[in-house]
Amino acid sequence: MNRARFRDKAVLVTGGLGFIGSNLALRLLREGARVTVVDALVEGCGGNSYNLVEAVGAIRLIAADIGDSVAMAEALAGQQLIFNLAGEISHTNSVRFPERDLDLNARSHLRFLESCRRWAPQARIVYASSRQIYGTPQYLPVDERHPIQPSDFNGVHKFAAETYHRLFAAIHGLETVSLRLTNVYGPRQALHLPWQGFITTFVARALRGESLRVFGDGTQLRDMLYVDDAVEAFLRAALAPLPGRAHWLVCNVGGPRPLSLTEIARTIAGADVTHVPFPETSRLIDIGSYYADDRLLRSWTGWAPRVEFTEGIARTLAFYRDHAAIYLPQAADTADRLAARAHAVH
Amino acid sequence: MNRARFRDKAVLVTGGLGFIGSNLALRLLREGARVTVVDALVEGCGGNSYNLVEAVGAIRLIAADIGDSVAMAEALAGQQLIFNLAGEISHTNSVRFPERDLDLNARSHLRFLESCRRWAPQARIVYASSRQIYGTPQYLPVDERHPIQPSDFNGVHKFAAETYHRLFAAIHGLETVSLRLTNVYGPRQALHLPWQGFITTFVARALRGESLRVFGDGTQLRDMLYVDDAVEAFLRAALAPLPGRAHWLVCNVGGPRPLSLTEIARTIAGADVTHVPFPETSRLIDIGSYYADDRLLRSWTGWAPRVEFTEGIARTLAFYRDHAAIYLPQAADTADRLAARAHAVH
Repeated sequence: MNRARFRDKAVLVTGGLGFIGSNLALRLLREGARVTVVDALVEGCGGNSYNLVEAVGAIRLIAADIGDSVAMAEALAGQQLIFNLAGEISHTNSVRFPERDLDLNARSHLRFLESCRRWAPQARIVYASSRQIYGTPQYLPVDERHPIQPSDFNGVHKFAAETYHRLFAAIHGLETVSLRLTNVYGPRQALHLPWQGFITTFVARALRGESLRVFGDGTQLRDMLYVDDAVEAFLRAALAPLPGRAHWLVCNVGGPRPLSLTEIARTIAGADVTHVPFPETSRLIDIGSYYADDRLLRSWTGWAPRVEFTEGIARTLAFYRDHAAIYLPQAADTADRLAARAHAVH
Repeated sequence: MNRARFRDKAVLVTGGLGFIGSNLALRLLREGARVTVVDALVEGCGGNSYNLVEAVGAIRLIAADIGDSVAMAEALAGQQLIFNLAGEISHTNSVRFPERDLDLNARSHLRFLESCRRWAPQARIVYASSRQIYGTPQYLPVDERHPIQPSDFNGVHKFAAETYHRLFAAIHGLETVSLRLTNVYGPRQALHLPWQGFITTFVARALRGESLRVFGDGTQLRDMLYVDDAVEAFLRAALAPLPGRAHWLVCNVGGPRPLSLTEIARTIAGADVTHVPFPETSRLIDIGSYYADDRLLRSWTGWAPRVEFTEGIARTLAFYRDHAAIYLPQAADTADRLAARAHAVH
């Protein structure tokens, strides 16, 4: 990939204060792009102003919902590439508040695409879809032809939004790519949000010196993708010529290799791992093993994940240790509580 | 099927003033059920008070949106079976007003299922899904394992609602069946709505004595299902024990045999059929040939379509001729305009 192609490009990143969005925005800035970030900082969606603290003044920030047509008219004018990563990220939240998930993950995208069609019809859009749309894998590795049978409302709405992107290409001539991401981890992920997934729970517990609890036997497989590799997939998907005469493409994005949850836990915490029974709320939305067949993306763009889990998790833990006061508020809480208890006893 | 099992059953039909809903409600009434109909008569959705004129006083009618939680508390109390047929029916409308389609076909169903869970958790729900969720068939006949790749927003939202029904079964323990209906035709369909599909256009033109226009070469196949056969599928799906330990099932519902659009047109209008080029708006959402593999429904319930197209269309045309003043307002309009023109000339 010729990175010079991002120099002076006008690019928009929605959800750009979130985990993957902020890493992507910072990378685009380093590549010389003129970066605008849209983020509504919706409670629980993982947005964090601190994620872009090192780029204050260098990135234009618009605090708005992507479904806000007036704000998007301003945000989209002149954009050449659009990275659409806004959305609700908690699968468990989606079971408790499915209508909120519908608004954030489907309706807002429908409105956003109408705005794109009006204000930036030439800009390619790369959408952050999710492995969640497949539900429980019926075979492994999972390719793009795997049946769509989401096991939670989040998956339903991610698939609706992904299909909106396809339809705005097929019907209205926009150019859209959807990346069905596997589990992504790394710096700037919101560790303090409950039920976001096992990886944030593992990392947060390890940083607090607590033992990791693996639900069930821990043999379920996941292909963990380091965020820098995910960002690279977005960049390549933004530039590669679309195959054939299609206006759209859908690609899986997987990690370097499948690892069991137990292996993942041990890599993070060494021997300090215990196995506990599956809580009911998690069991209901558990999908067993997942890892992606992402040969389509590899052959289309030359992309491949570079960062092994051992290396990625080391970088991740180092980042959070350096920024514990920001990303681990519960660590401070716990310390305060321990201090208070110590005072009470002594 | 033991029809006596509907006697004195409390049943709810949503969208019960619409095409299939009203035929279903009338049939349930004949089977001795205590029928409540919910219909919001949303403009363009095919609801028509006249559809139930013969049952005034015998069917309880609640004029409300299925997403109205307060009205649904009353509508759902004590129901033993729920037939959920409410929704936007125009695929072309869904392209022009996708957010309206999202509200009517997805959001309302999410709210309705929450109401069902609260007020009638024991009642089986039979949902009217659609072949539209498959998009352009990748093989024929189309079975339930066919990829989900809707070619319009209507299909996206029908699939979302179908998946809501599955998730409310899997997560919350409701019992749900979704019937993916092929093209249905027959009495009480709203002929006056634009762009609802070719069959209403064909029937309306034939009734007005206009020649039928087939887009393209007319070789695309469809398995046309007479509404009485569709109603029978709903009744059987409401009573048959679910296989295995699942709380949900999804079944295709097809017609007796595939017919080409040209055959369909000639059966309706004899030789008075012309071929015209595909209009752009229709071409964009055309899906080629479709006919269903519905062996799952047949083996599960013993259902099979009984009414051949020749017979069904004869009954359909006879019904509309008997009720032209109600169902063919454009016939009156056209007559008025012709009369006015005659006055102007003479």
